[in-house]
Amino acid sequence: MPDANRQIVLDRLPGAEKLHPEHFRLVETAPPQPGDGEVLLRTRYISLDAANRAWMQGATYRSALESGQVMAGGALAEVVDSRAGHLKSGDLVWADTGWQDYAVLPAKRLSKLPDMQPETHLLSVYGVAGLTAYFGLLECGQPKAGDMVVVSAAAGSVGSIVGQIAKIKGCRVVGIAGGAEKGRWLTDELGFDGALDYKDPEFKRQLRGLGGVDVYFDNVGGDIFEACLFAMNNHGRIACCGALSQYDGAPPPHGPRGVPGLIVTKRLTLRGFVVMDFDDQREKALADLQGWVQSGQLKVSEDIVEGLENTPAALVGLLAGENRGKRMVKVR
Amino acid sequence: MPDANRQIVLDRLPGAEKLHPEHFRLVETAPPQPGDGEVLLRTRYISLDAANRAWMQGATYRSALESGQVMAGGALAEVVDSRAGHLKSGDLVWADTGWQDYAVLPAKRLSKLPDMQPETHLLSVYGVAGLTAYFGLLECGQPKAGDMVVVSAAAGSVGSIVGQIAKIKGCRVVGIAGGAEKGRWLTDELGFDGALDYKDPEFKRQLRGLGGVDVYFDNVGGDIFEACLFAMNNHGRIACCGALSQYDGAPPPHGPRGVPGLIVTKRLTLRGFVVMDFDDQREKALADLQGWVQSGQLKVSEDIVEGLENTPAALVGLLAGENRGKRMVKVR
Repeated sequence: MPDANRQIVLDRLPGAEKLHPEHFRLVETAPPQPGDGEVLLRTRYISLDAANRAWMQGATYRSALESGQVMAGGALAEVVDSRAGHLKSGDLVWADTGWQDYAVLPAKRLSKLPDMQPETHLLSVYGVAGLTAYFGLLECGQPKAGDMVVVSAAAGSVGSIVGQIAKIKGCRVVGIAGGAEKGRWLTDELGFDGALDYKDPEFKRQLRGLGGVDVYFDNVGGDIFEACLFAMNNHGRIACCGALSQYDGAPPPHGPRGVPGLIVTKRLTLRGFVVMDFDDQREKALADLQGWVQSGQLKVSEDIVEGLENTPAALVGLLAGENRGKRMVKVR
Repeated sequence: MPDANRQIVLDRLPGAEKLHPEHFRLVETAPPQPGDGEVLLRTRYISLDAANRAWMQGATYRSALESGQVMAGGALAEVVDSRAGHLKSGDLVWADTGWQDYAVLPAKRLSKLPDMQPETHLLSVYGVAGLTAYFGLLECGQPKAGDMVVVSAAAGSVGSIVGQIAKIKGCRVVGIAGGAEKGRWLTDELGFDGALDYKDPEFKRQLRGLGGVDVYFDNVGGDIFEACLFAMNNHGRIACCGALSQYDGAPPPHGPRGVPGLIVTKRLTLRGFVVMDFDDQREKALADLQGWVQSGQLKVSEDIVEGLENTPAALVGLLAGENRGKRMVKVR
């Protein structure tokens, strides 16, 4: 039987404040016991995502978080006790364990993940981040060879993969990220054609200097979304993946200018999506991603923080943009 | 040979002012003479459209208007002198004659319109308005039987047709228009299931009371666009046709709230379009529209103002929402 179960509780909803580690507290409880049809899971790696913060704002594609609950979050977890036929001890699953050592969940929505080394790839390129990049770019963005593709939060888990897939598809790719160092990483390590620093006073001018954007993969919303809208070519596509700039603080009083005027005059298509919408095409996507990783065309970037107790600070850091690639917390 | 050519000149660009008849002046000149490959056209009916005002704001899908030029605008016109093989005197064409009795245009972009009674239908249901409604709803909106379809500027030339086509396709249809009287016209005459008055203080509550919108056909932008965005169902489609609320006056300092946040969480698709984008599907569209008109499923609403000299006031009135259906000016 497991020892104690450490849990990180969302002690207080941040509301319009910036998220801070003190919004959380660590508690210890007895490990839970699985009932019939349930499994006891031990958390190995917790996935950190900007969406974690969005869940604190209200209902989105999932119900809003409440203060006092164990912080929600997806994780790579190991079955340690199974009361369900299709899972056995030692199996790895992807589950919303929350931020804790152990969780009991109904087994029926869980499925065994394939064996893979390193197993962290199940959380990055073969997990939500990789699939989000894949479907958002290819289904919503509809890139064609030669297109100018721009992606924001380009050094993040999704953006870093979006840009590389766009290169594989023969596009010209420019990433938007904060700071010159991230920009160099995008061009020198990941093969982006260019990078723009949104903190640079010349950012908008540089964006216009690209000569027209065919596909914009938006992870951030807000001012960067607006600037990209004005930089779009006629008949361009915008994949709306997230609105990172809007999650951590007060909601903006207004939206971006140019909506819907520029959507009409430039004949743009904007499409919002959530990765689950494409579950029926998952096998094909994973096969493509694996092929590209194995051939070296797609580099996997993981940013691993050690220790459950550091999860709050790791999320706060992610919201401030300190990660490169997929951030996760190694629990054990 | 024709007598004098009356022309309505855009004397002064309105800038951020509301458009007023005094922004125009009437002049008389000698009728123009066609050269080789050109035709002399006599204007019969001038089409009035909210987009006429948008052209004064700057470049859109066409170049911006300038003060001192004859006001631009499409018209149903008759060939009175032809120096081109494929057109002869008496032929009717659709052409950007501008607001004047006579115009000389290169013949190569003009084609003879079919004979039809009443010929005004060539400007309404079989012209830009009808085709805009058809393609915007069916291609961008992708309505399915049973869907809740909402259209703004519903008593206008495009909106009144959008709602009727949506009914033909088995949808539930609610039109947004200003005032209870227009609403009654939509439901009692055109067969809409309901109408909402955007001037009613309870408008947003009533919109939410529809229980979720699957397709929103947007002609107006601004606050109504924002309200509809919040009322959309997951996986809804917004056809972005125009932004009437933004044309006549100062451009808005900000866009609607919920962009791109709601686009993501509701997985919406927004698509802007201009009717010319669908020229390759024009024959099919006209055949469908004619079938529906002949069977009585689609009622054609035309609002005909007499006299070239009244064109400025007729456009100002259209921007204020005084028309029902397609407004045009009978020149002769």
